[in-house]
Amino acid sequence: MRILIEDVTAVTMCEETPVMEHAYLLIEGNRIGYIGFEKPDTDADRIIDGTGLVVMPGLINTHTHTAMTLLRSYADDMNLQDWLFEKIFPFEDTLTPEMVYEGSVRGIQEMLATGTTCFHDMYFFQEETARAAEELGIRGVLNEGITDPVLDKKLEKTKTLLELVKQGSGRLKVGISPHAVYTCSEETLKTCATFAKEHHLPIHTHLSETVTENEDCMKAHGMSPTAWMEACGLFDVPCVAAHCVWLSNEDREILSRHGVSVSHNPVSNLKLASGVAQIPELVQAGVQVALGSDGASSNNHLDLFEEVKLTGILHKGINLDPTLLPAWEVLKMATINGAKALGYEDLGQLKEGYLADMILLDFAKPHLTPNHNTISNLVYAVHGSDVVYTIVDGKIVYQKS
Amino acid sequence: MRILIEDVTAVTMCEETPVMEHAYLLIEGNRIGYIGFEKPDTDADRIIDGTGLVVMPGLINTHTHTAMTLLRSYADDMNLQDWLFEKIFPFEDTLTPEMVYEGSVRGIQEMLATGTTCFHDMYFFQEETARAAEELGIRGVLNEGITDPVLDKKLEKTKTLLELVKQGSGRLKVGISPHAVYTCSEETLKTCATFAKEHHLPIHTHLSETVTENEDCMKAHGMSPTAWMEACGLFDVPCVAAHCVWLSNEDREILSRHGVSVSHNPVSNLKLASGVAQIPELVQAGVQVALGSDGASSNNHLDLFEEVKLTGILHKGINLDPTLLPAWEVLKMATINGAKALGYEDLGQLKEGYLADMILLDFAKPHLTPNHNTISNLVYAVHGSDVVYTIVDGKIVYQKS
Repeated sequence: MRILIEDVTAVTMCEETPVMEHAYLLIEGNRIGYIGFEKPDTDADRIIDGTGLVVMPGLINTHTHTAMTLLRSYADDMNLQDWLFEKIFPFEDTLTPEMVYEGSVRGIQEMLATGTTCFHDMYFFQEETARAAEELGIRGVLNEGITDPVLDKKLEKTKTLLELVKQGSGRLKVGISPHAVYTCSEETLKTCATFAKEHHLPIHTHLSETVTENEDCMKAHGMSPTAWMEACGLFDVPCVAAHCVWLSNEDREILSRHGVSVSHNPVSNLKLASGVAQIPELVQAGVQVALGSDGASSNNHLDLFEEVKLTGILHKGINLDPTLLPAWEVLKMATINGAKALGYEDLGQLKEGYLADMILLDFAKPHLTPNHNTISNLVYAVHGSDVVYTIVDGKIVYQKS
Repeated sequence: MRILIEDVTAVTMCEETPVMEHAYLLIEGNRIGYIGFEKPDTDADRIIDGTGLVVMPGLINTHTHTAMTLLRSYADDMNLQDWLFEKIFPFEDTLTPEMVYEGSVRGIQEMLATGTTCFHDMYFFQEETARAAEELGIRGVLNEGITDPVLDKKLEKTKTLLELVKQGSGRLKVGISPHAVYTCSEETLKTCATFAKEHHLPIHTHLSETVTENEDCMKAHGMSPTAWMEACGLFDVPCVAAHCVWLSNEDREILSRHGVSVSHNPVSNLKLASGVAQIPELVQAGVQVALGSDGASSNNHLDLFEEVKLTGILHKGINLDPTLLPAWEVLKMATINGAKALGYEDLGQLKEGYLADMILLDFAKPHLTPNHNTISNLVYAVHGSDVVYTIVDGKIVYQKS
């Protein structure tokens, strides 16, 4: 299958040619065959007229619990402990595989419709989320969430998931998810680390989301959650740590030294009153920062453009410095940084040979005209609803009706 | 003209019956003729099937500069002084009436498409914004921005605007806008206050947007901007003060005592790095808080649902308290509080006899199902793009294609 996008504004996310006007982009199979200013001399199975459209790499959601769409609007505006123990956990105890499938379908539909082409999941019954992802065409890295005391069973589930994914489209990968320092014992954390090393799996975890988590970890282990995870070996393999709201300089140095990627989830962190992660300081420390939506029960949306905009404005406002995290840096977090965080070396930019995951946005709408600066508009003015085509692995998996 | 909405979920914004399932709503002329659970025995010119839809009062944007859509994405991520003096002001010096008309058309189209039915404007060439508003059917209160040293001319323009509006549809009102303490001399402020009293006009101004504004006012007048505006008589008439980021307890007490309404503009305040207004404290002090988008050059969107969500999450996150500003309170800010702030006693709720300004949203989308709680979803999960009908003064002025 060959798809040719003609006369389009391409936001490549490459430093040397960030924005290409009147460009042509050819998709051959699941890769980008050509991007440039000349019309390629080839027959295409499908031609998309790019007039008035912007094409950019698909967004990468580096932390979510997709099936939690089922719990959206189920409980809000509550104290965190009450919210978790009186509402969320009891609801989750009733979940069946079929429900997780249904929730995953809705969440993936929402992500594809709002420009996310790759997601990093952590939840129960991941084989059901894998089924939904295979059917709907999204790319992703799946992780069965692991908490005490069900370690062996969960490790078995991760092995089963690995087998399942091997037989699939090739768009899915598997990682391992020790949930957090407050839900995993030392043994659980260390076993996960060993399992990850043995099976060459990346780790996906929550880290320093709340003050309470930090205080409890300090009491229990005499060190911060970051230092404790390091001590348990979790950072000896590629790792994405979600939230990282409460970090010290020493914590940031540990993350930087081990190449741990941070998934910044600003909407969830504000809504759950966790606080504001110090992203400019993390960037300054050389830590790779990507973006995540968290689950729909604590966001309550999976439109990653919300995270893009909020990241672009929140840190300016909190630090009283409008020059912090300029638009281009934020857009990188949502694309190339996300790709690297999830272990892809050929994703997150529009580049020949790269995987053909991209989105097209309608820039002819009143709220995007005049367009003085495409990068600025992508960060500060676009909504997920401006997406008109979503392409994953060379296939059109969403087209706005 | 009679429009009947059948079998709809109505979010009335009335405390006694906030959400009515399977309701009927009849619009007669420009008023709500009936809302209840019985199908009214009447012929309607138009019937809207409300299945899967939510109807609620239209949102009220209490602070914007509509024509600044022209400057969206023109300059971002800059120091405030450079942004204003090197980019925004020089651009604005080139504006013509025709350009302001074009910018107003785009801005009003954007507002209507995202659920705003009434706007509070402050800009140049307001007769052009009035023309656009009359053509497109929105409700609004217009204010010619007044800065030194052009007072007489600007007062004349306000008089002309008053005459123009008197001959119009009745949907537009006029106020007077001394821009801010840092752009208006004592004489200008006092003359505006006198003019407002003489002509029974409300005031629309900027107040304590930045630390610098406060410091400079203290140096010049020995008091805060709030105390200085009070001393100049600006609060002797109904007043909407935008931003109010940097207020003391004394300032809040002054605003409360005079019944000044605050227009909270959280997106703009973050993006321009002005800071975060202490909204819970303002509410606690008895001040009426409504929401505003500010201009599209400092937001960069006029979708007021963004302000709704950000207001709902920001103050929780900053204050580490997830129970602050629950969804219902925030939705009131965007509707009934906005109506009261702009001097309407019959707007902002779905109530018999009230003005027929309302929006219908498509709740059948993946990101709004399942719908455990309509109020929660309106605040945390809806986007402006979920609006399918916008009705102002009994007329359908936007219908999603």
